[in-house]
Amino acid sequence: MPARDSDNAPEIRINAFDMNCLGHLSGALWTHPRDTSLGYKTLEHWMELAKLLESGLFDALFLADVLGLYDVYRGGPETALRYGTQVPNNDPLLIIPAMAAVTRHLCFAATAILSFEPPYTFARRLSTLDHLTGGRIGWNIVTGYLDSAARGAGQARQTAHDTRYEVAHDYMEVVYKLWEGSWDDDAVVADRAGATYADPRRVRAVHHDGPHYKLDAVHLSEPSPQRTPLLFQAGTSEKGRAFAARHAEAVFINGRSKATVASHIADIRRRAAALGRDQADVKAFVELHVVVAKTEQAARAKLEDYRRHASLEASLALQSGWTGIDFDRYGLDEPLRYVENDAIRSGLEALTRTNPEKRTWTPRQLADAGLAGGSTTTLVGTPETIADLLQEWQRDTGADGFNLSHALRYESFVDFIELVVPELQRRGVYKRGYGEGTFREKIYGRGRRRLQHPHPAASFRHDRAVVVA
Amino acid sequence: MPARDSDNAPEIRINAFDMNCLGHLSGALWTHPRDTSLGYKTLEHWMELAKLLESGLFDALFLADVLGLYDVYRGGPETALRYGTQVPNNDPLLIIPAMAAVTRHLCFAATAILSFEPPYTFARRLSTLDHLTGGRIGWNIVTGYLDSAARGAGQARQTAHDTRYEVAHDYMEVVYKLWEGSWDDDAVVADRAGATYADPRRVRAVHHDGPHYKLDAVHLSEPSPQRTPLLFQAGTSEKGRAFAARHAEAVFINGRSKATVASHIADIRRRAAALGRDQADVKAFVELHVVVAKTEQAARAKLEDYRRHASLEASLALQSGWTGIDFDRYGLDEPLRYVENDAIRSGLEALTRTNPEKRTWTPRQLADAGLAGGSTTTLVGTPETIADLLQEWQRDTGADGFNLSHALRYESFVDFIELVVPELQRRGVYKRGYGEGTFREKIYGRGRRRLQHPHPAASFRHDRAVVVA
Repeated sequence: MPARDSDNAPEIRINAFDMNCLGHLSGALWTHPRDTSLGYKTLEHWMELAKLLESGLFDALFLADVLGLYDVYRGGPETALRYGTQVPNNDPLLIIPAMAAVTRHLCFAATAILSFEPPYTFARRLSTLDHLTGGRIGWNIVTGYLDSAARGAGQARQTAHDTRYEVAHDYMEVVYKLWEGSWDDDAVVADRAGATYADPRRVRAVHHDGPHYKLDAVHLSEPSPQRTPLLFQAGTSEKGRAFAARHAEAVFINGRSKATVASHIADIRRRAAALGRDQADVKAFVELHVVVAKTEQAARAKLEDYRRHASLEASLALQSGWTGIDFDRYGLDEPLRYVENDAIRSGLEALTRTNPEKRTWTPRQLADAGLAGGSTTTLVGTPETIADLLQEWQRDTGADGFNLSHALRYESFVDFIELVVPELQRRGVYKRGYGEGTFREKIYGRGRRRLQHPHPAASFRHDRAVVVA
Repeated sequence: MPARDSDNAPEIRINAFDMNCLGHLSGALWTHPRDTSLGYKTLEHWMELAKLLESGLFDALFLADVLGLYDVYRGGPETALRYGTQVPNNDPLLIIPAMAAVTRHLCFAATAILSFEPPYTFARRLSTLDHLTGGRIGWNIVTGYLDSAARGAGQARQTAHDTRYEVAHDYMEVVYKLWEGSWDDDAVVADRAGATYADPRRVRAVHHDGPHYKLDAVHLSEPSPQRTPLLFQAGTSEKGRAFAARHAEAVFINGRSKATVASHIADIRRRAAALGRDQADVKAFVELHVVVAKTEQAARAKLEDYRRHASLEASLALQSGWTGIDFDRYGLDEPLRYVENDAIRSGLEALTRTNPEKRTWTPRQLADAGLAGGSTTTLVGTPETIADLLQEWQRDTGADGFNLSHALRYESFVDFIELVVPELQRRGVYKRGYGEGTFREKIYGRGRRRLQHPHPAASFRHDRAVVVA
């Protein structure tokens, strides 16, 4: 059990938010002399990060992924390429085994974009990781949003948004069947004397004949500690929320205000409850950026130093990719809500969905908000101020924890661990040691190794499967 | 440079042949009390193996993979499941990063079955591994052969053999374009002062409009040490040999006699030369199983001990899967060439292709040949006998080295390293230290980091690519 001083204030959970690339969310901050991102292609870079995060008792490393380039800004990928903004990027799953080898408790939530992962082999990939990490794997389910990714797969453009979620529902059913339905818990007997590894009567081919996927196969991997990895989802649209309410065990929310985040979390939990799920079974993590120092003045100076190494262009390239709006076509200080254009209106709708209280945006404001450390709120201050703000955010939004983006690798995480973690521990809201068990057990408690009814994954256990003839 | 005593006798290269599963080729030998295979689901199992192989100066760990079950024997997967024969199995790529983290020179040749790997994401996966390992990656190109894998992808059965090779040629063109043509060698400048990571003028979208794949995308990964990983191939059919002659830098040959292997190697090299390639640019590795002890008697006793833990049924399940013949439908001692049946004739043709001098096979003989340690020739004897035989095999076949299958993990490799390696070193035919550089440089010498003309990959460098508008 996690050792905490007090059970009165809720525990704050912390994940690091990062990506297997040079520059994740922080413009051109790899240019900062103290940044280590140039090592992103090496195993050592990631093993060091993992050891650091475990020393700070972080719950997980949350790894983003993007298939495609940010090529909306100025109609091409030049800006993203120049600043190394999420391109080049490498496969997120392949850095996890080496990080798992040098840690014991740190968990890993990896983004995988299902449109480009055939389910039969993808299910094996995540089962393999769940085995190798001893159950420390989560999956952030993404349907993809960049047209350039679709062109990489030979399609002219991304599948329409709503269709993508239909495909995703079908996909989830396939992987649930493989993870939960193909092998019984007692299928593997590993009996040396009897020369029997698996009892064939406890292993079944799963059958699926859905609108988008068909499958007739035994899952290749034997049951892993969690079977279905801990499921994260980050959708904000109507369909995205419906998907999260049905499938997600944890949602990842990139909101700019407490009110927006609170309403988003409450809405998803309401929807989950309407499907018969316990509202407490949808944990919520909010993306925040923290800049901390021993004095307020030093913290503000640190942020200013970061901003001097950042790039407004790189930030605009990210914003353009996310919204589908080429912000270079407008004045930096032009209020965007007055531009009449279908694509822009749709992009602004996406922005205002997460920022309903803000009516007017300029490209400069958008880019500036995420200039150093990501697109979300930046909290700046002393350890005490940061701890106050995190507790406020948690209280006012109903979040269970935070995904911390970073300005500098590894400095942002080092600062948090050295300065904020002890303050949170002093307040009794941060663990002093890891709990035992899998990712799911660390988040939901011992005995919660598997997904439970009425989560849809649980319904695909052996009763739904068909015995091999 | 590898330090060797003599330049007169050719160097013998050694790879370990294994698979991310419980039982690879050796029937039920995980039941042997000294076998460690039950740990196959852990990182530690593979890290120990990697450290062992590097201590023995093995060139590489060659990892097989199978998508699907051996379900031909007795018309179902029960036998394979009971004995753990290549099922359950896990993803081969995901054990490599942790093994790379504890080694410096050992290379990794991973099997990936292209029919189930969309090329855009697969190219990134191998680029990622090439980066993380510092260029120690090879790819064994497989088109797949089990119907159950096709059913896993929603197809009724495997694509026809010849069509699979047409798909494979198209696929190779796509991944060559991504690996070789998208980023120039000088594209990454990583200039902190100038805030420029990549020069966009040196990065290009690659276009492909082939019969099976279409693509219009910038490769997501920056150039890795080798760009295209070292290419292995193992096809024996007419189309398979043509494919190897065009694409393979190393062929992996599973033959049962020196004459067969010699003729196979010579044929592929002849075909490569007809395409303008240097015959020396197709290295050949022969699958062998070695059982060694200090005396002939002890070696024979060791093999007999292994065989007592093996399973004829498990071996028949493998043979049935490979040939498409359910050997349970025939008497164990029935000479198979007399059975009139299209499927069997086709299966026997596959067998006799690699064994032209042998005219009559019984199911028992087939299964018995690979009972303990795989389907290939087993060499049994003292270190001196084994060294003699390996040198003979090399001399008589033109092979550059061997892929060693194993009876027991790790005992088979430990024995080889402790007993045979020193004897080969004494004879001056085995390195005493690793050469520097990538997998390709270790095999082909310094300066051979990239594929060279007239290998087709070289033709897709930037002159063929189109600049992003």
